[in-house]
Amino acid sequence: MNAEVISIGDELLTGQRINTNAGFICSELVGAGVGVKRIIACADSEDAIIDQFTDSLQRSDIAIVTGGLGPTRDDRTKQSALRFLKRSLVLDEEVYARTVERYRSSGREPSAYLKHNAMIIDGATVIPNEKGLAPGMIIPWNDGGQERYLVLMPGVPQEMEAMMRSTVVPFFSGKSGVCIVHSPIKTTGIGETALADIVREIEDNLSDGTSLAYLPHAAGVDLRVSSIGSDKEVVENDNRITVDAIASRAEAFVYATSDISLEECIGRLLLSTEMKIATAESCTGGLIATRLTDVPGSSRYFVQGFVVYDNDAKEETLDVKAQTLVSHGAVSEKVAAEMAEGSLLTAGADIAVSTTGIAGPGGGTEKKPVGMVCLGLAYRNRIGSIEIETATFYTQGDRLRNKIRFSEAALRMVWKKLRDLSTRD
Amino acid sequence: MNAEVISIGDELLTGQRINTNAGFICSELVGAGVGVKRIIACADSEDAIIDQFTDSLQRSDIAIVTGGLGPTRDDRTKQSALRFLKRSLVLDEEVYARTVERYRSSGREPSAYLKHNAMIIDGATVIPNEKGLAPGMIIPWNDGGQERYLVLMPGVPQEMEAMMRSTVVPFFSGKSGVCIVHSPIKTTGIGETALADIVREIEDNLSDGTSLAYLPHAAGVDLRVSSIGSDKEVVENDNRITVDAIASRAEAFVYATSDISLEECIGRLLLSTEMKIATAESCTGGLIATRLTDVPGSSRYFVQGFVVYDNDAKEETLDVKAQTLVSHGAVSEKVAAEMAEGSLLTAGADIAVSTTGIAGPGGGTEKKPVGMVCLGLAYRNRIGSIEIETATFYTQGDRLRNKIRFSEAALRMVWKKLRDLSTRD
Repeated sequence: MNAEVISIGDELLTGQRINTNAGFICSELVGAGVGVKRIIACADSEDAIIDQFTDSLQRSDIAIVTGGLGPTRDDRTKQSALRFLKRSLVLDEEVYARTVERYRSSGREPSAYLKHNAMIIDGATVIPNEKGLAPGMIIPWNDGGQERYLVLMPGVPQEMEAMMRSTVVPFFSGKSGVCIVHSPIKTTGIGETALADIVREIEDNLSDGTSLAYLPHAAGVDLRVSSIGSDKEVVENDNRITVDAIASRAEAFVYATSDISLEECIGRLLLSTEMKIATAESCTGGLIATRLTDVPGSSRYFVQGFVVYDNDAKEETLDVKAQTLVSHGAVSEKVAAEMAEGSLLTAGADIAVSTTGIAGPGGGTEKKPVGMVCLGLAYRNRIGSIEIETATFYTQGDRLRNKIRFSEAALRMVWKKLRDLSTRD
Repeated sequence: MNAEVISIGDELLTGQRINTNAGFICSELVGAGVGVKRIIACADSEDAIIDQFTDSLQRSDIAIVTGGLGPTRDDRTKQSALRFLKRSLVLDEEVYARTVERYRSSGREPSAYLKHNAMIIDGATVIPNEKGLAPGMIIPWNDGGQERYLVLMPGVPQEMEAMMRSTVVPFFSGKSGVCIVHSPIKTTGIGETALADIVREIEDNLSDGTSLAYLPHAAGVDLRVSSIGSDKEVVENDNRITVDAIASRAEAFVYATSDISLEECIGRLLLSTEMKIATAESCTGGLIATRLTDVPGSSRYFVQGFVVYDNDAKEETLDVKAQTLVSHGAVSEKVAAEMAEGSLLTAGADIAVSTTGIAGPGGGTEKKPVGMVCLGLAYRNRIGSIEIETATFYTQGDRLRNKIRFSEAALRMVWKKLRDLSTRD
């Protein structure tokens, strides 16, 4: 089966919103054995939407549509679908009851809009919306030829993503008859080209039906190993062999072969080593702390974080020596070391990481350019005494990218130390 | 004039790459008075590309194509354009000389590929590539009707962006007689439906050529007022009148009518009121600090941030009273108040905001459910004494959404206070 993804919204055509929904839908569909032929972003106009439905359903088995299902009047998708399909609306009692109940339970008076919201296109299978109001729909459509499907979902990413996983993917993977396995390989601290060099030999000898994709992101690059075939066992075996080969070849950079973040990986290592962590951040401004605490249950190992922008704060809160600041400058490995040790002691943690650098756009010098960060790592060794390591990391980007890459470098330092400590046990 | 943007590459259709190029092209075209009717991502297949050229140039004056101009085998755009246009290639001596020269000056031996690279479609205007090798082309095309344009550019963002600004935008802004104005209206603390109710009367009476779009995001919803017409003055006037009307009607929620973030808005208010800020975060885990420090120059007003997860840290670092923690619980307005005051004093700031709540997924109770946050705001009034305000905010989402909405609610509290303080001056 094949599909076209239709994203509706003027804001996509004015460049005010980047179409991330389509990317998510495509990768999910690929996993369901459905190939995507086109992604189309189209305006909030009924004529444009109806033209697009016509084109796409002539070419493809499925048209997956997001956006334009909300309450406001620039939302035209449902109306356009009615006109295109020449069908009518029917009230879905279940959707209506569920939304009324949700309003009541959160202490709100059910609004008249809820009835309008629960009107479903005749013949549609409802896609329940666990994260919001507007229900999605899978609408079989047959213009004399073979059965085709119009799928409508809201444009709010969390709502759409939940609908894809709970209903849309299972619905179509059942029909496609193909078995596909995708395995993520998460790396940190290496670029796309260098990683490609390391795994080239493996990539050149992939078994039929297995492919390797590079997924670069702001902080690094991840890999995805995809295997496709009709025999589930063969597909899963081919996939696992390739994943294991790459993971051992790129061992220094691979922190996980499951879909977890570096901060989740660190959280698991902290729990297994029974260590508690603290952070002392200057140029990352709290980003390391917020990444660590994005992980559910992080309160079990995250003790305390300090964001110390100016020198007084570094001295008073973290006991950085005035002399060190004067002789080495705030952006120096010596200051990073004292920040890390200071936060370790102040917070009573077992491991602490620190950053001091220049995120930009201003503040750079010849010797200490924008994109430079000094990292400090302090931790208690077996006999309880404190060991300290430092490093300096350079990158090039705007302020936000630099903050992300600085935080990634710091978390990478923590990950490697925890990995050593845990394997030594 | 209107255009369609065609992005070529299989990686877009598998979800391995998000189409950020199209967004950039759209915003640049809008500025040139060229409306975009569709964005299409299409596969690296000559047939698919030629079909798309045909469709798009039937509907629109311009087809802007990125991707598939490089040396690798999967780059099919130039070949497809040749077949579609039924034209031949000619060597562009200037492009060839420039690339050879660039190779020599960087000490590389000019490769045979450079000649292939300098082959231009007959009749094309070359778009010089300052950032890379492959030249772009603007190709006038006329199938008997009016003049249309096929524009080819590489998919590498830096190369494409430079080409748009240096050549493509000036070329078409000269030809389009239309004037378009888009104005953002940034709001915080109100949902799409409620906002629509507030501005309904204005929305019902928009002048011809002016439209209103709702752009919901994780933390709230923004608005965009778009006006189009032939007379620049009329268009700008219509647009401004609508923006002003909405901004005053929704005054309690509108923090900006320019494209800035809430944290940027707060930064400007802090500079104008000459106040310095500190943060004391529990459940937001440093997100408020990192949002405030995402703003360039924030070191001028951001003093210090504390991420205090456990109670000891709250007591030792921020002088929260043990008694308060026992009698009110860590998640309480009383503790939020003491956290805010403690961070204000410890950091020597003029205003401080605090959060203590339950981000989830665990840790919720009947009385203190997941999604509940207590906020504290401490600030120095005119006569230098400290005033404290608290609030409790409820939301529903996963851990990450809750953290974002908690941080938004806290920043909103800061924004409103700073707005009052600055207008009182």
